[in-house]
Amino acid sequence: MDVRLINPFISATANVLETMAFVKVQAGNPYLKKNSTALGDITGVIGLTGVANGTISVTFQSACILNIVSKMFGEKMEELNGEIVDAVGELTNMISGQARKELEEIGKVFKAAIPSVITGKNHTITHCTSGPKIAIPFFVGDGSFTIEVSFER
Amino acid sequence: MDVRLINPFISATANVLETMAFVKVQAGNPYLKKNSTALGDITGVIGLTGVANGTISVTFQSACILNIVSKMFGEKMEELNGEIVDAVGELTNMISGQARKELEEIGKVFKAAIPSVITGKNHTITHCTSGPKIAIPFFVGDGSFTIEVSFER
Repeated sequence: MDVRLINPFISATANVLETMAFVKVQAGNPYLKKNSTALGDITGVIGLTGVANGTISVTFQSACILNIVSKMFGEKMEELNGEIVDAVGELTNMISGQARKELEEIGKVFKAAIPSVITGKNHTITHCTSGPKIAIPFFVGDGSFTIEVSFER
Repeated sequence: MDVRLINPFISATANVLETMAFVKVQAGNPYLKKNSTALGDITGVIGLTGVANGTISVTFQSACILNIVSKMFGEKMEELNGEIVDAVGELTNMISGQARKELEEIGKVFKAAIPSVITGKNHTITHCTSGPKIAIPFFVGDGSFTIEVSFER
């Protein structure tokens, strides 16, 4: 995979979280995802088409997304309800949008599908492609979440 | 939503299941999905871009997909392992591909992202769009599964 496809998703994630939720996030080292061991409670996923077809997903543990959305809304959120689902969909959409804008500036044009949000205790997500699947952990306060970027070979 | 966008997904689902798993499926009545109450154990989801941006998902209960993949492989499958995940990704891809081919014949061209597969007991999926979300139940033997088709307004 062209590594230039990955960095825009890292910077977009940091920017979106800082702008929308006023939280500082720290990106960890990207790694090749070998199997779907990462577990989460809520995931936003959005398909991409264009110079390569792919998908990005953002997976949160419950405590982490409740903390982020509490900061977005300025009120304490206590459960994974419809408002949290909408917020995860919106964050996923914005990360995709900002990253695509940056990619377009280097001549790589992508279109985005609409986001879907999955909720369910300890689910896993697998991206079906023979290409590499890159996972990037993000740390925010004492929580963490993971974004995954996959493209066709 | 243009109803002509929905029927190709219904016929593609029946065709793919009959061709790949030698099972007869019966489509129930499509309905507008109001909230994400449908629960499943494994879901394939794939984004679409083109004349409209959207997403389709296929959600199975565990017993139903084990039955289908057992017939695909000609051997009894007993648990939701990596082979089942791959099969759900492949079925999702094929349903998307056949439906897109049929849509192209009426002048509606879509591109598809890559499928992602979510596993987790009793998860729900929500498609984030202001447009209508259509769910279509399918009956196979004594099991059932649901496909969902959503496009932007």
